[in-house]
Amino acid sequence: MKRLGILLSGRGSNFEAIADSVAAGRIHAAIAVVISNRPEARGLESAAQRGLNAVLLPSKGLDREIYDRSVVAELRRNRVDLVCLAGYMRLLSAWFVREYPSRILNIHPSLLPGFPGLDAQHQALEYGVKVSGCTVHFVDEYLDAGPIIAQAVVPVLDSDNADTLSARILEQEHRIYTEAINIVLAGNYRIEGRRVLPAGR
Amino acid sequence: MKRLGILLSGRGSNFEAIADSVAAGRIHAAIAVVISNRPEARGLESAAQRGLNAVLLPSKGLDREIYDRSVVAELRRNRVDLVCLAGYMRLLSAWFVREYPSRILNIHPSLLPGFPGLDAQHQALEYGVKVSGCTVHFVDEYLDAGPIIAQAVVPVLDSDNADTLSARILEQEHRIYTEAINIVLAGNYRIEGRRVLPAGR
Repeated sequence: MKRLGILLSGRGSNFEAIADSVAAGRIHAAIAVVISNRPEARGLESAAQRGLNAVLLPSKGLDREIYDRSVVAELRRNRVDLVCLAGYMRLLSAWFVREYPSRILNIHPSLLPGFPGLDAQHQALEYGVKVSGCTVHFVDEYLDAGPIIAQAVVPVLDSDNADTLSARILEQEHRIYTEAINIVLAGNYRIEGRRVLPAGR
Repeated sequence: MKRLGILLSGRGSNFEAIADSVAAGRIHAAIAVVISNRPEARGLESAAQRGLNAVLLPSKGLDREIYDRSVVAELRRNRVDLVCLAGYMRLLSAWFVREYPSRILNIHPSLLPGFPGLDAQHQALEYGVKVSGCTVHFVDEYLDAGPIIAQAVVPVLDSDNADTLSARILEQEHRIYTEAINIVLAGNYRIEGRRVLPAGR
């Protein structure tokens, strides 16, 4: 059984979706640890309520690589195979990324490479796109930049504000994060340049 | 009856689609003139074969604004209401854009703001996106940058190369360019910031 490590900073709605998928047998893995860098993260409380191993490692005031060493130590202690970022509001150091090569995933609420960074849904509305969506990608040390595993599309409606658009995208986030985790856990893919393709082709 | 002016530089497949829509009554407008900046453009020949007013205005070696003045003179002579770029490989000068405010459209084979500029389909494949598409937008003096009227999405398949992806996108280009022209000709839209919204809301 593969072991997942979840990193979060906030409510952790994608963590909840992953935990639901694990509980329902849609993901054949265990959640070994849930780590928050913020004491107030609601996702941390919800992990504890689910009886999961919920760990607070406050990042405030710490140098990136010093902090990342404590996170990786915690992941190693829990023998984590795959790291899933779920609203984790920090860039990872290159050192962290090298410790888990092609074993760190993130989800972002836009069709990357469009609208990286904060408030992606607001950015999309301001730009005036007619479609948006979400992206699961491998994490490197750059912002929302690694090879893409899955994307899903939603329409942007004329009546949308950032809340309604975010809610529509979030439904798809929950669906494709589970799909992407299963692709990576199964290991039957290859990365060609930046393209993530089935291993068998 | 509104009058369209088409600008092209190559085979003009989007011009063909617009001409087919006009002929079939899906666009209630006339094609007043088809202008090419390149003598070898196949679209020019095809316009002539359709009995349309096909005009060659070679741009080679000419300063942008001097050239644009000759194009605008030709559009004015033909009393053009709406200018449609169809594979027109030149940026318009700010002067040209001001002469036809919100009356110049372009189509681009990507989901803008992703992959502007040349070889958008190749860029998308290299980036490794799982979905792509096309965008009809108002033209300003910047590259593939004005407010978006319509977008359509296509999947990027694992087996795709630039040709197969381009063909899949092209089908959608032909469909949404007609839709966007009808929205603009009907005039029942407003532009709020960068968002193109129905006039009535």
